[in-house]
Amino acid sequence: MKSLGGGPTNGIEPRCRPIGLFDSGIGGLTVVREILRQLPNEHVVYFGDTARVPYGGKSAETVTRFSIENTQFLVRRGIKLLVVACNTASALAMPVLQRRFEIPMIGVIAPGAEEAVRKTRRRRIGVIGTTGTVGSRAYEAAIAERDAECTVEAIACPLFVPLAEEGWVDGDVPRRVAETYLRPLREHGVDTVILGCTHYPILSSVIGEVLGEGITLIDTAESTVLEVCRQLDSLGLRRTEGGAGTRRFFLSDIPVHFREIGGRFLGEPIQDLAWIEQADIPWYERTP
Amino acid sequence: MKSLGGGPTNGIEPRCRPIGLFDSGIGGLTVVREILRQLPNEHVVYFGDTARVPYGGKSAETVTRFSIENTQFLVRRGIKLLVVACNTASALAMPVLQRRFEIPMIGVIAPGAEEAVRKTRRRRIGVIGTTGTVGSRAYEAAIAERDAECTVEAIACPLFVPLAEEGWVDGDVPRRVAETYLRPLREHGVDTVILGCTHYPILSSVIGEVLGEGITLIDTAESTVLEVCRQLDSLGLRRTEGGAGTRRFFLSDIPVHFREIGGRFLGEPIQDLAWIEQADIPWYERTP
Repeated sequence: MKSLGGGPTNGIEPRCRPIGLFDSGIGGLTVVREILRQLPNEHVVYFGDTARVPYGGKSAETVTRFSIENTQFLVRRGIKLLVVACNTASALAMPVLQRRFEIPMIGVIAPGAEEAVRKTRRRRIGVIGTTGTVGSRAYEAAIAERDAECTVEAIACPLFVPLAEEGWVDGDVPRRVAETYLRPLREHGVDTVILGCTHYPILSSVIGEVLGEGITLIDTAESTVLEVCRQLDSLGLRRTEGGAGTRRFFLSDIPVHFREIGGRFLGEPIQDLAWIEQADIPWYERTP
Repeated sequence: MKSLGGGPTNGIEPRCRPIGLFDSGIGGLTVVREILRQLPNEHVVYFGDTARVPYGGKSAETVTRFSIENTQFLVRRGIKLLVVACNTASALAMPVLQRRFEIPMIGVIAPGAEEAVRKTRRRRIGVIGTTGTVGSRAYEAAIAERDAECTVEAIACPLFVPLAEEGWVDGDVPRRVAETYLRPLREHGVDTVILGCTHYPILSSVIGEVLGEGITLIDTAESTVLEVCRQLDSLGLRRTEGGAGTRRFFLSDIPVHFREIGGRFLGEPIQDLAWIEQADIPWYERTP
């Protein structure tokens, strides 16, 4: 594994290089979980910016700057494909990342929009996400590109991330919070709701309960990894042989309850974990 | 004002140099508010690390690193005294800051503990704070130093910060959250509770309601600024003449709803606001 850390190419056959993912924290582990399921042979390098989490209420400038640094970190580890496994970063930083890096990359917005348009019956789609994601109107744009007739109702739910991180995923408090946020979606008559933040699948049972029966919830992790499969195939970069892939997790901070909370998102215990100093990221890049 | 930015001494009479404060975000504005009230002649420079907020669940190493960078930023602005206006940073980083910087400094833990010991009647004190503050046991140590007979019950309340930042300060949800967290304090029979996070005064009415009558709430901002007065006097550094002081606010990010939320903490509209890039902090320090 060590040789993968040496640089972008480094003599390794392209299909054997890892897929890189970053998220503001540990929510993106729900995407890693889906890779383990759909693409068990792929090597994975994950970076969670736990020292600066959350991104949800921060400005587009700051989220973009952090996203560039996180991408540089992964590119130096020789990844073959980047997954921006964070809705806020996908919503605010993708155009800049696409201009600055040549590597193929996938965000979580387009696959989520794609699946919602395919599944809605009445062409009324709800989106829930962070303040940054909702303010960007990125889902509205991605949905309009695919079906201009769809109406979209987007709601910022800033308390869902701390609830998910604290493990308050059922009971009275999350239900009241969900009722307060989700009332406008129910009134709008949506039939499909995009969980527009990688933390939200952890809360999907209370969200589903409050929205009521007959509403389809879209978990963007699943559709994002389907898109990863498609891109790897079309680029001839899929690793199909050589046994199960390895996984490496890098974090800019090891938060107090990390192992307990991280396992909940990944669906299995986290191994091979390293702590890097986030401050090192701009530092390495700026000094030749 | 500009000349104050030039460096630590720079020919300015020491008593005319500003008081510097930092916090993980905007909660520390409750301390600035108290300075405006108790010390209206003082110049103030505030740094809020809004790009990396919150500190409450992050590791001691990361909180200490951020605190050093924030202090360096303020020291370069020629401050005469540092107030660590963040409970988590005070709890985890004060010893390192005291070793690394020669400037006089005050955290929020010792003044809060002092006041609680003075006010408790049954010597049963409650502390509520972030996961980092409570895990550090810094309040327990500060209280035991002053009165070894006091018992202390400390509770981490991680959802209070996002509630305060979202402005969910009354109504059903904050009350349920407060009831869940504060039950052990009521059972423990405390008569005095330290609001061990600069965000919590914003929630004091719901906290007081849930705790019930006869319990004294300690807002550490007030006692901290009393200690600032004492230290300035004993060092001969108090600015008593020359009219009202100036205030400058620096933030590492301008969050989406900042002006609205910041004003709520400061108690008046925020003027003279600058945005610095947090990335510049380690960068300036490490390259000569």
